Amino acid sequence: MANFVLVHGAWHGGWCYRETAAALRAAGHTVFTPTHTGVGERAHHSAENITLETHIRDVCGCIEWEELSDVILVGHSYGGMVITGVADRLSDKIRSLVYLDAFVPEHGDSLNGLLSKALAPEVAAQFLGAFRGTALQDHSGLMQPIPAEMFNIAPANRARVDRLCRPQALATFEMPLLLTGALDNIKNRLYILADNWDPSPFRYFAAKAEKASGWQVVKMPVSHDVMVDMPKELAAELLKLA
Amino acid sequence: MANFVLVHGAWHGGWCYRETAAALRAAGHTVFTPTHTGVGERAHHSAENITLETHIRDVCGCIEWEELSDVILVGHSYGGMVITGVADRLSDKIRSLVYLDAFVPEHGDSLNGLLSKALAPEVAAQFLGAFRGTALQDHSGLMQPIPAEMFNIAPANRARVDRLCRPQALATFEMPLLLTGALDNIKNRLYILADNWDPSPFRYFAAKAEKASGWQVVKMPVSHDVMVDMPKELAAELLKLA
Amino acid sequence: MANFVLVHGAWHGGWCYRETAAALRAAGHTVFTPTHTGVGERAHHSAENITLETHIRDVCGCIEWEELSDVILVGHSYGGMVITGVADRLSDKIRSLVYLDAFVPEHGDSLNGLLSKALAPEVAAQFLGAFRGTALQDHSGLMQPIPAEMFNIAPANRARVDRLCRPQALATFEMPLLLTGALDNIKNRLYILADNWDPSPFRYFAAKAEKASGWQVVKMPVSHDVMVDMPKELAAELLKLA
Repeated sequence: MANFVLVHGAWHGGWCYRETAAALRAAGHTVFTPTHTGVGERAHHSAENITLETHIRDVCGCIEWEELSDVILVGHSYGGMVITGVADRLSDKIRSLVYLDAFVPEHGDSLNGLLSKALAPEVAAQFLGAFRGTALQDHSGLMQPIPAEMFNIAPANRARVDRLCRPQALATFEMPLLLTGALDNIKNRLYILADNWDPSPFRYFAAKAEKASGWQVVKMPVSHDVMVDMPKELAAELLKLA
Repeated sequence: MANFVLVHGAWHGGWCYRETAAALRAAGHTVFTPTHTGVGERAHHSAENITLETHIRDVCGCIEWEELSDVILVGHSYGGMVITGVADRLSDKIRSLVYLDAFVPEHGDSLNGLLSKALAPEVAAQFLGAFRGTALQDHSGLMQPIPAEMFNIAPANRARVDRLCRPQALATFEMPLLLTGALDNIKNRLYILADNWDPSPFRYFAAKAEKASGWQVVKMPVSHDVMVDMPKELAAELLKLA
Repeated sequence: MANFVLVHGAWHGGWCYRETAAALRAAGHTVFTPTHTGVGERAHHSAENITLETHIRDVCGCIEWEELSDVILVGHSYGGMVITGVADRLSDKIRSLVYLDAFVPEHGDSLNGLLSKALAPEVAAQFLGAFRGTALQDHSGLMQPIPAEMFNIAPANRARVDRLCRPQALATFEMPLLLTGALDNIKNRLYILADNWDPSPFRYFAAKAEKASGWQVVKMPVSHDVMVDMPKELAAELLKLA
């Protein structure tokens, strides 16, 4: 019986893990799918002034108030920024970290800063331009969601994803992650690369993980939204850690 | 009869302009000294999730609801980040921009990013380390004020400044300023350099201004807190623009 | 040389005191016109979860950070709720309280509760219905401004008032004011009744003040927005307290 906390990526919400969570629960495990402030069912708190720190506190709060320990903490995409911060604060509560087609930051990294490390310069510039450009529109401070098609999400699932995604504050992508280093005590790490979309910044992080000790790397033949397009296969992979 | 909007720097509040505002009003001018959300008399709204965007909106709001035009817009220190953003949005309402020992950002610049352009690497690293380090303490997300002594504020004024300053969200220093370029229509710019403290990042901006067209540069023999240590002399300088 | 703090009513902002503040400053006095969170130039913070407490803190902050004492504290309309709370917290900083066509609450009173004391039942019900009804629309939690015409504001000023007013959270009208009683130490109180509009709840409070000790009552032949329609006459009245 394991405790899973599944952390979603940018613009999404806990809703994206619906089928994966069901599969894990059917196997007898405890699962939480907290939604970040400002998106999904917390969209009524949408504001330009929501930061990476806000989202880290969201997930820490879930672990603390649900009094979880021995957690398998999964982060998708931008969620890799969040779970890294959470793990640094609650390292004694975390058994394993799973980066699901996700960013793997170090102290001082921001998501937008990592783009230029993980992508060709012109591709990084396109992403950065889209994020800052939509935030500049009407000075909203909010990044518009990337359409499901760009992530190569299965056609049958695109409408649902586009319908449920919401704008997200630019400050979540620009803020550096500040770490104490307590994170290093967590030895068990898995990288799951979604191997059926490009240009993906996540090939860079998977390649780094392959060379690092303490990491396992798994590749799945799927779009960026692994939990939407292959929810049961994802659950099967996570169950190996339980 | 001119309209002055005096924008304070980090950790301070509208309170720091008390004597300068009084002198300008005594000369018959209209003066506003809006306080940024989260500091000064708005300290009850202090939170990690306050950004540069929040403070730009604070000052834009002042100009819009007071229905001001032909404004002489003054920004101190971090306030240079704020007035640049305000000027880009309300360029047709601004007559002159005054950078008072202040940062002069371009599109995409953050205050923390500018430190490494304006200071020797080891000095920039010290500032950055202090800002991020205090924000990391207890994961507050808030930077502690720099003590008045470090800015060489006159001994008689230090206690008041230290008593009234408040922690400020790191996100105000990390967020990039996003500009449309409308700002370029404002031709009348003054840089006031406080020439009696170091290591000052503002010598870099004053030197750039000296070489640029449309800029005047004035040096005053004073600490960083010009409006605290030389309020009447500052008012005299500003009155030349009225 | 006196210190005036002029507190606006519902939906308005510090902007409404522009001419009165100018007149008081021209007479050599210090004047602050703090704007409540969520309206006026703080409208970018508009939210359903802004309460009477928030606005009391806004004004207390002004007095504390501007280090004011011996204050003449003026509250217009709903601002009477706010200044009463402020005076209870900072009674040693307040010289005089001025209720400008304003509510005069006691411990436990809310503005909406006072309506039924101060107005005929069917009129109170109309106001309450409008406040709660507009807050219910789209579940905004925000009360739409009462049009300037209903307050009998001078035709020439109506467009400006209607243009600058903003929705205000219902929680500011529903929350009871909680008092310690320290307020009772302030002996010097003035009620200014705007005697040229109806149905006015403020005739009730003026009548109570006329019978109470420590109160002066003045009537002005003007709409509810005294500071908009008779700014100089209002300043003249306030100068008698300076």
